[in-house]
Parts: sequence; structure tokens; C-alpha cells
Amino acid sequence: MIRAAVVGATGIVGQQFLVALKGHPWIEVKALAASERSAGQSYRKAITDPATGAVRWFCDEPPVEDVMDMPVVNATELSTNGIDLVFSAIESGPAKTLEPQYAAEVPVISTASAFRYEDDVPILIPGVNPGHARLLAAQRKRRGWKGFITPNPNCTTIGLAVTLKPIYDAFGLNSVIMTSMQAMSGAGRSPGVIGLDILDNVIPFIPGEEDKVQRETQKILGVIEGDAIRPAPFVVSCSCSRVCVLEGHTEAVFASTRKPADVASVIKAMREYDGGLAGLPSAPAHLIHVSEDPFRPQPRLDRDNEGGMATTVGRVRQDAALPNGIKYVLVSHNTKMGAARGAVLEAEMLIHDGYIG
Amino acid sequence: MIRAAVVGATGIVGQQFLVALKGHPWIEVKALAASERSAGQSYRKAITDPATGAVRWFCDEPPVEDVMDMPVVNATELSTNGIDLVFSAIESGPAKTLEPQYAAEVPVISTASAFRYEDDVPILIPGVNPGHARLLAAQRKRRGWKGFITPNPNCTTIGLAVTLKPIYDAFGLNSVIMTSMQAMSGAGRSPGVIGLDILDNVIPFIPGEEDKVQRETQKILGVIEGDAIRPAPFVVSCSCSRVCVLEGHTEAVFASTRKPADVASVIKAMREYDGGLAGLPSAPAHLIHVSEDPFRPQPRLDRDNEGGMATTVGRVRQDAALPNGIKYVLVSHNTKMGAARGAVLEAEMLIHDGYIG
Amino acid sequence: MIRAAVVGATGIVGQQFLVALKGHPWIEVKALAASERSAGQSYRKAITDPATGAVRWFCDEPPVEDVMDMPVVNATELSTNGIDLVFSAIESGPAKTLEPQYAAEVPVISTASAFRYEDDVPILIPGVNPGHARLLAAQRKRRGWKGFITPNPNCTTIGLAVTLKPIYDAFGLNSVIMTSMQAMSGAGRSPGVIGLDILDNVIPFIPGEEDKVQRETQKILGVIEGDAIRPAPFVVSCSCSRVCVLEGHTEAVFASTRKPADVASVIKAMREYDGGLAGLPSAPAHLIHVSEDPFRPQPRLDRDNEGGMATTVGRVRQDAALPNGIKYVLVSHNTKMGAARGAVLEAEMLIHDGYIG
Amino acid sequence: MIRAAVVGATGIVGQQFLVALKGHPWIEVKALAASERSAGQSYRKAITDPATGAVRWFCDEPPVEDVMDMPVVNATELSTNGIDLVFSAIESGPAKTLEPQYAAEVPVISTASAFRYEDDVPILIPGVNPGHARLLAAQRKRRGWKGFITPNPNCTTIGLAVTLKPIYDAFGLNSVIMTSMQAMSGAGRSPGVIGLDILDNVIPFIPGEEDKVQRETQKILGVIEGDAIRPAPFVVSCSCSRVCVLEGHTEAVFASTRKPADVASVIKAMREYDGGLAGLPSAPAHLIHVSEDPFRPQPRLDRDNEGGMATTVGRVRQDAALPNGIKYVLVSHNTKMGAARGAVLEAEMLIHDGYIG
Repeated sequence: MIRAAVVGATGIVGQQFLVALKGHPWIEVKALAASERSAGQSYRKAITDPATGAVRWFCDEPPVEDVMDMPVVNATELSTNGIDLVFSAIESGPAKTLEPQYAAEVPVISTASAFRYEDDVPILIPGVNPGHARLLAAQRKRRGWKGFITPNPNCTTIGLAVTLKPIYDAFGLNSVIMTSMQAMSGAGRSPGVIGLDILDNVIPFIPGEEDKVQRETQKILGVIEGDAIRPAPFVVSCSCSRVCVLEGHTEAVFASTRKPADVASVIKAMREYDGGLAGLPSAPAHLIHVSEDPFRPQPRLDRDNEGGMATTVGRVRQDAALPNGIKYVLVSHNTKMGAARGAVLEAEMLIHDGYIG
Repeated sequence: MIRAAVVGATGIVGQQFLVALKGHPWIEVKALAASERSAGQSYRKAITDPATGAVRWFCDEPPVEDVMDMPVVNATELSTNGIDLVFSAIESGPAKTLEPQYAAEVPVISTASAFRYEDDVPILIPGVNPGHARLLAAQRKRRGWKGFITPNPNCTTIGLAVTLKPIYDAFGLNSVIMTSMQAMSGAGRSPGVIGLDILDNVIPFIPGEEDKVQRETQKILGVIEGDAIRPAPFVVSCSCSRVCVLEGHTEAVFASTRKPADVASVIKAMREYDGGLAGLPSAPAHLIHVSEDPFRPQPRLDRDNEGGMATTVGRVRQDAALPNGIKYVLVSHNTKMGAARGAVLEAEMLIHDGYIG
Repeated sequence: MIRAAVVGATGIVGQQFLVALKGHPWIEVKALAASERSAGQSYRKAITDPATGAVRWFCDEPPVEDVMDMPVVNATELSTNGIDLVFSAIESGPAKTLEPQYAAEVPVISTASAFRYEDDVPILIPGVNPGHARLLAAQRKRRGWKGFITPNPNCTTIGLAVTLKPIYDAFGLNSVIMTSMQAMSGAGRSPGVIGLDILDNVIPFIPGEEDKVQRETQKILGVIEGDAIRPAPFVVSCSCSRVCVLEGHTEAVFASTRKPADVASVIKAMREYDGGLAGLPSAPAHLIHVSEDPFRPQPRLDRDNEGGMATTVGRVRQDAALPNGIKYVLVSHNTKMGAARGAVLEAEMLIHDGYIG
Repeated sequence: MIRAAVVGATGIVGQQFLVALKGHPWIEVKALAASERSAGQSYRKAITDPATGAVRWFCDEPPVEDVMDMPVVNATELSTNGIDLVFSAIESGPAKTLEPQYAAEVPVISTASAFRYEDDVPILIPGVNPGHARLLAAQRKRRGWKGFITPNPNCTTIGLAVTLKPIYDAFGLNSVIMTSMQAMSGAGRSPGVIGLDILDNVIPFIPGEEDKVQRETQKILGVIEGDAIRPAPFVVSCSCSRVCVLEGHTEAVFASTRKPADVASVIKAMREYDGGLAGLPSAPAHLIHVSEDPFRPQPRLDRDNEGGMATTVGRVRQDAALPNGIKYVLVSHNTKMGAARGAVLEAEMLIHDGYIG
């Protein structure tokens, strides 16, 4: 069994890691870390509001009893002795200093964006760019670490990159235009999106998000060149919005392909896309589901397809505004495939491919 | 005073007409028509649920007391004697037969789509294409009517056409890509959008909507050629979605201009755009508001700007995916400028320009 | 295996029956009936929108493949040959004539209110009033039926009756005051609650609901006297509201007990309440869950406890306004325990107790 | 003109004060105070997010231009020179030390609860208990202040107290049971209610709220006895919940009156209730509106009645569970009559009655 620590364990993403790792056949949780405030308490106590006795557990799944009595240590003092892998669920600010500290000793898989844009850091999506893991050796060497850092992509990038991959492989891409309608859970709970701001409303701006999606998509679909990734040579342009949805990002995508692509061929390419994930415990049977129902995908109805690990596509149709234009709508679960469960799948791939353990 | 009949007066759009015409300085409501079920009753009785006594009034504004005791006649039997103008708020099905019946005698301004795509029927937006009214003479002549029919555009078209107009004038347009996040009120109440379908959700398809917006935008920005309108020579491609918002359509627009257009110039063109509406009672001071706040426009905060008659634009920025790409977000009030109040503004323009009265 | 027909199979409650019966160890679905419009088609075709090809399936659970190719018959022509039990998911209007037609031959378990208030018709809640099933013999005899009709309670009654039962048993009851905050799904989809009416709103009236809850609660907790039920001798007074929630009714209850009841004793009575449901496939392990978290129960977080079959109680505290006052809040799943799954549990109890099969 | 300072001016309640005082005929805003962070800046700058340039203005009404260039001072250093009245919109914690500091010199009207439960502090509702203002002299004397502190009630208390007043006057009261369905705005924005917690949900607990409503209602309807208020001798018992509504608290009330009260008499007493507010600029024409529509009041439709200053009542009916039971539903605007505008009305009453200025 791979022995993992979860850092940032008391927050919502940390809790999602605990759910994703509950009863995992390959990985066991051996240590929990969080901020100084929680350090020295049992996990149960650390997530209990002392004033009201309410347990601050934020997942739909029930609290993970196995870890309730584990001690929580201060993230700055986490020892990697007896740990094979760190899952980091902390904010980008502290990640900048803490993740290298862990990576000096062991591999770190992170949901933070702190290292995503560094040359020697791959942003891995199992089934999309497993080959980018080769960059980890260069990273190790360059930084003098025994471990490495590999962050998963932004939750808005992932559904886009997954669905563009078979199109890019089959037809090439000139450019991609995407408007997102993102769920509130993407903003977390500190305080995330305030009810007064989002009810009966759309917020048309998410600071930093568009730039992240644009850069990450090109990096993920790029190729390794020397010790870095050459971004894929198509432009991505986004307009990112927040809508009054709990979970599941919806994205309206317009893509211009290099070779002409008819609707049936695009659907076929998506349906037949096989990311080579067979055997990984958290992998969906199909990375992409394509619905024939013109009213799908819908976030409430489709976000949980294959445990939130599949991206659901619908409304594939020709677009007349772009050369070789194709348009479609996708729904991707931003806190399953787009966060902790996606990171666990990444760990499984790296274990399977010999990078961890 | 122009004497108007409101047809479809008991429905939500009909009620919005009554609100828009309350105390109007140029137009007075002289007749109300609705389906056979309501015929022969006072307006008050026609909108009262006999089982519960509840008044079925759907506008935020209070019921219009002036018309409460007016009789409602059967729309199929409405006499145009003593009427100068018909506002039609009926569905497209009955509009196909009823509107020509009225137009044989008097002008008809309609919120239905029944005649929007006929060659000799202009889709007028005051401040955008007033010159298209010249087509009404051809329509009259060709159809042998004393009146005419002029529908207002689809509620999703109007904000797009209004904001593209100054860009088109100043820079030309190659193509336009738009993703809408539309309010529930656009679907009406029969039953419109069911709460169970839209809460915590996005519905990515509105039957017929994308085609309407694409065709109408090109027609509205086209030019008269003979007895028809030559559509503007740029392609519009949409992805239309319904979100959990009461009123106000949000649209994320990506436009490719002919001449390069920087952000400041686009904002300037929008702000300075003067539709020549001065003196029309329902006209906004500015057709387009441009916000500097990166989090605007938001439907709840901006839909009521200038009584719902202004389109609010924000987040104007360069787009890298299209040649000379510009992107922005707009909010337009779909049941004010986008429906009855927009139709009343159209009536005012036609009265002012001598086409009515 | 008990062979069941589901009548009203294409509607939302009918679909919930199909989900509740999928893979059922004691009951198999042998016939599907619906309105004339669906008759003669396969189930799949009957629930497919011919215009768009969209499948009109309304449950969170996936469509039940086992029944997709079964034919749908006209409910007025359903033969009870080869059928041991009818589950009726139709509206009260048609139920008045159709349910007796079926009951002449076989038992009918119904979610309609048509027969709930008749003297010889018990409203059964497994675990609460199983003894009322004895009335079925009187019903059979009096009406000359081979079968019988037994409706389940209104979805708002069930959580109230379940939680009052241990209080009534232990302490007696003088009176009960209840304010409900009911989910939209309780109103169905025809059209149910319109999004425009409920977003950012509360609707403080549900026609007929308060009277139903008041009468049903007293009947369910009453005792058989001759061939009828003498209602429990305490008064129930309700104020029923609709809130913007998908599923799960929340009820704030204030109860005056005969004997003094402290908070700990009430919690103990609820927790220890054993409805004798062991062995019934759809039964929850505990009919009542009592939460210590002061912020619970919440409909989104607690409606699915034990598959929607448990009622969750919280905030048990003294009430100073009533003699021996106790107050608490409950959440009950209105379309699981409160509808089809509750009716299936009722069938299981009647099978177990020898009334069916 | 009375010269007022607004303390806590940058928060949402402070902004509501600025809106309520815009163009006020008797009161002018002469000073703005807030926390140290804002001190020394213009109001415009203090409410502008430096990172994005977004103006953090939270009212539906547009920002009040008159105060945009006024300086903001540190609330701990506010000088009462040239000030006749302080409106305090700060939290209860800082209010405990700051409000006495101001009250040493000038009258303070507060939306904080810090002093509500002190013996010599009246909780005034114009139209309900104006006579309690006599207690202010005792407060002044006892505390050695030139000014005084008078807080307005909790936003949930106010609609209840206003509607109980005519019932209490006409019929007496034994006890009151109330379940609230409260809007999110009552929780403010720091962070108030998180969207992830309230969408598709009800939160059945608001810490401290039930106790506040119970005590305040009795105090407001009590009588002065010596230098304190003897609470009204009826018990109030509440269950307070948060629902997914922006503004407007809905309350389901069950009241037991001393003398029998039929529905028509209760409606008559409410409609005829005249709080003696004629001449006060912010006063509604009628403190209580009673709707005949069985589906009213609804928060979205009724919260803004008379500018949010009227309480709307509906569904008045007999209650069978309480002796002489009456039940009804009310909607009251929690951030208009229930906060800043209510406090301004209170100031008007105190000015009119000679307590201020």
C-alpha cells in the first residue's frame, strides 16, 4: 500500500480527498495536516465547531470514520517519514513554500495552482497527457528533490482538455472559444460565493480563471521539447462566469479544426476515445459520454456520471462562424474529476507507471 | 392620442404592455382582447382565479387600475373601429391568422415571431435600424393592407444587435460567436420553465432560439435592397442556455471585426452611440451603458438600468482566437427592452416618424 | 414473486415506483399502464418526446432498463389477470373511478388522495399503524371487492406522523402546531411549481394541504373502532408553505404533550422507536434519526438518509408557549418515504403480514 | 436640519442608511465613520476594491453620489461636534464600547443588539410603542449621558410585533408560536450565508435569533413600570429558519388570544390600526396591509410594499390547536423596516416628539 498524507485535510478539498481515498485498494491515509489552528487535535475535534458542536463536514458523502481519530499535525511540521506521497489541498499562497518542502522528500500531487506554470512541472490528466510525466525526472534533477510536484489542472480546464483531446488528435485545432457557466463549489467556502451575490444572478468574471484555462489547455495538449512543454499551437479564448449551481461546470465550446470535421465524426472520436485507463481504480469506463438528448448535458443531471469522473458532451453541431467550426456543450464535475478524485486518479496512474512507490 | 388595442392582454406579455402604456403621453389603451375563455368578462374578472380569488397578475409593477373594468373581447372578434394600433402579445400560432386580420385595417406591432422572417417584414429596433421602416410601404402594397405588421426581435437578439451596431458601424464585422445565459421569464408561464428543472441547473438548449438570433441579427443589421432586406454579411453562431435567473439575459460575445479595434475604441463607440431616440417617451438616455467594474454586468444588478431599456456591457477585452477579436459580456432586460416596452418604444418611433397615426 | 402493475407509469411518481421496484426481491413489475396517449407504445417510446428525441425521465436514478421494452396499456383497460397487486400513481380525479375497478379484483396501493378519507380505508404507514390493516377486511366485505384500496399518506403528513408516534405513545398529545417548508417535487410536474414563482420566494399556501395533514395525522394515530378509525384525540394545526427546494419537506413542529416530556426523554423515545420493520426490504434501519448538530436537519443534507426512508429530527427543545411544550424540526423525503418507496414499503408489510399474495 | 453621523458606513447596513437618508427633508448626513481600514479615505475610495476597481456597493438603489467624496473617519475617533444624532450600523461587539462613547454626547439610534436587553433601554417601533421613549430620560440620568442609546429591534421581531399589536390591543394575548423563513440578507455579508449552504436547502437554526425574538416582542409590547419595562405577559415561542430568499422575512404565526377573535375582526383590527405616524417622512400610509389573495404574502412580491415599510399579512384563519386560536402569515422587509429605514423612521418619531434636536 502507498502511504499518503493529506495536507489541508480539514478544508473542503481535503475532505474530498478523504472521501476519494476511503477504502482505496492501493493507497492508505497515514497522516493528516492542516493549519496551526487544527494542529494537535484529533481530526474529529478539528472539524467540530466548539461553539455549537456542529461538525463542519462539507461533502455529500458521510464523514470518513476511519480518520476521525487520527491526529492532525501542523502542515509546516509534517514529517515525510513513513509517507510515500503527499496530496496537497492547500491554497496557492502556502503551497509555494510548503509543497517544495514536501517534494524534497516525496512526490506531491496538488490541487493548488502554485507550480502549474513552471517549465518543468507537468499538469497531468490521466487519459490525456500521461507522457508528460516524463518531465518529472527533469524536475527532480533540476531542483535536487527526491520527490516532485505535479498539480492537477484548474477545474474549468479539465473538461475542456479532455473533450478537445480526441478532436485535436483526429482533426487538429486552430482555435477554441469557450464560455463557462461554473458552479459555486469551484470557489470553495472561505467564503466562496455568497448567497446574496449569486441567487437570481450570473457573475461574469472569475479573477484569473480565463488566463488559467487558456494557458493550461495549451500546455496539457502540448508536447515535451527538451526539459519543457511546448504549448499546443492553437489559441484558446474564454469568458468565465459563475452561475447559481452547486456542483458541475458547464461549458459552451466553439472549436475550429484544421481538417474538416463533421458532427458524426466528432461524436465518434469522442465516444471511441480510450485514455488507456483500464485498471486504475478511480477511472471511469469512458472519459467522455456523448448524449443524444438535445437538452443535455445539464449539470444537475450529468455531473455525477461515473462518479463524477466522466465528462458529458451534448449538442455537437456545426458552427458557421469559424473555419471548420464545431460547437458543443460539456459538463464536468469540478470537485470530482476536477479536484480531489482527479488527483487520486493521477496518483493511480503514476503508481501504475512506476513514478510513485 | 393614438388609440391602441392590446391583444393577448391577460398573459404576462399582455400585462407588461399594460404596464408600459400606463399613463403614456401619446398612446391610450382603448380595447383589450384575449382568448375565448376570457371574452365577455371585465379584465379584473378575466385575470382572477375563480377557485381561489387570487388575481393572476405577473408583473412586479402593481396591476394597472385604469383597465381593470374594461371588457375583454375575443381576439378573433376584435373590431379595429376606433383603433389606430394593435399591440399583439399572442403566441406565434394564433398570430399567423390573427395578425393579418388586424393588419388589413391598422398597424400591428407584435412580440410574436410569426412574421419575422418574411421578406417584406422589417424587425425594427429603435436606435438601430429605423430606416428599415421604409419596407412597410412595400409590405402594405404587396399584401393589400391598410395597416402593416412589424414584430420586435427575439428577446435574445435585441441586446446583441444593439451592442453590435456601433461596432459594425465603426469597424465592420466578420463573425460573431455568442453564448447566452437566459432568464426564465423569456420562456413565459405556460408553464415556462419548471422549478424542478432549473434549480441548481443550467439547461443548454432552447428550441429554435439559436436560429432566431442568428437570422434576426443579420436581418436587423442588413440593408434594404429592393423590397427586401439583404442580411448583413457576417455570420452569427450561438449557444443558447437557460439559467436560474428571473429576468435579464446575459450574453458572452466574441466578435471578429474587419478593421482592427482596440478595447478603448470599442468602449468609446458604444458609449457615444446615439440612436437618435431623443424625444421618444420610453427611450433610455443611452442605449448602451459600459461598466468599468470587472464583475459587471450582472443580470440582477443591471437588468433594470434605465427602466430595463438600456443594454449594459462590461468586460470588453481583446480576444486572441478570432482575427481582430473583441470579447465582451452584455445584460439586456428580456421582458422590458426585449418585449413589451421595446414594442412600445417601436410604436413611439413609428408615430414620431409618421408611420402610425 | 408478487406480480405488480404500475398505473400512471409514465409520470414522475410512476417512474419512482419503477426505480423503487428495480431488482426488488419480492415484487416484479408485470404490467405498465398510463393514459390513452401512451397506450400501445413501448415504455421507452411513451416517455420519448417525439419532437426532440429527449427521454422524459425525471428521477435522479438512471432509467430502469428492464421495463423499457414493456408495452404500456391504457389504464382504463388494464387487465388484472396475472397481476397480484396494483401500484397506482395517478391523479385523484381518475383514481376515483379507476382504483375501484382494479380493487374489485386485486389489492391497490395508491399515492392518490381519492380514498384517504373514507371510513373503511386505512392510511397505512409501516412502523406506525400496521394494525389498521385489519380494516381492509371490512372494506372488502362492505364493497364486495376481492382486493382493496389502501392509499399512503400525503407526503407532508408522513414525517409528522412518524415523529409524533413515539411521543404520543410515551407522553400522549394535546395538540400539535406545524409549519411546513415543502419541496417543489411535492407539486409534481404538470406543471408543478413554475421557476418564475418560486425563485427568491416562499409561497405560503398549498391548496388543500393543511386540511389533509390535519385529518390524516389524527386518522393514522387513531384506533380502530368497529369498522372505522376513531381519530386520535389531539388537534393538529398547520401552515403549509412551498420553498425553493428540490426534494425534502422540512417541518417545524410544536407539540403539547399530556404528560411532561423533557428533551432527553423525547430524543430517547424517538431513537429507540422500533417500528418492527426488520426484514422488509425497503425498511430503514431506524425510522427516525435524531441529530445533535444544531444546524440540522437540512433538506439537502438529510433527505437521503437511509435512501430517503428515514425521517431526520433535530433541534429538539422545550417550548414555553404550550403546556408541556416540545418543539423540533424534521426533514422527510417527500418522494421517497413520502411517495413511491413508501408505498412499496407498505406493500412489503402487507405481503409480510399476509394481506397480499 | 438634524446633522447625523453614520457609523459603520461602508458595510451593507451603513449603505442602507445612506440610501434611506438621501434627500431626507429633516436629516442630513454630516459625517461617516467606519473601521480603521477605511479611515482617512474618501467614501468612494473606501468602498472600492483596490485589486479590481470594483465598487462594493450592496444596495439595489444606486450609490448615493452626495457622500462619495466625504471623508471616512475611524469610528473610535468620531467627534460628535456638530453632530446631533448618530446612526450606528456596527456589529454588537464594537457597539458595546463605541455606542456609549457617542451617547455620552448625542443620541444614538442603533441596529446592533448590544443594548437591547438592558432595563433602561427601550426598543422602539414607531407606531407600536412610542410611549417607551419616556424611558430615555431615566437612561440619561442613570448613565450620566447627554445623549442616549435606542436600538431598533431584530429584523425578525419587527413584523411580528407590528402585527401582534392590534391583536393585543383588541383581544389580549395568551401565547404566540411563530416559525420564520428568513431571507439571506438578514445575515449580512461577512460572509453571511454561503451560496453552497443555502441553494436547494433550508437552514433550521439561526444562533441567538429565537431568544431575541421572544424577549424583544414581550418587551416592545410591555408597559413602563418605574424605570424599566415590564414585559407583556404572554409567551412567544419561535422556530427560526433561513431560506433561499434575498430579502423579506416570512413568518407563520399562531396566536392564542384572551378574548375570542374571529377572522374578520382580526383583519379589521389590523387594517384599521393607525400607528399615529402621519407626517413622518418615512412612514408607510398603513403599517399593516392585509391581502385577500390566499397565495399572499410572498416575500418577492410583498417585501417592497410601501417602500419596504409596511408589513403584509395574509391567510388569516382560525386555529384549532390553541384556545381562541388565530393563525396568519406575514412578510416584512428585513433590511428596510427591519433595519436602516426603520431606524430612520424611529429618528423621525424622536425628532417629532422632541427627543432629538
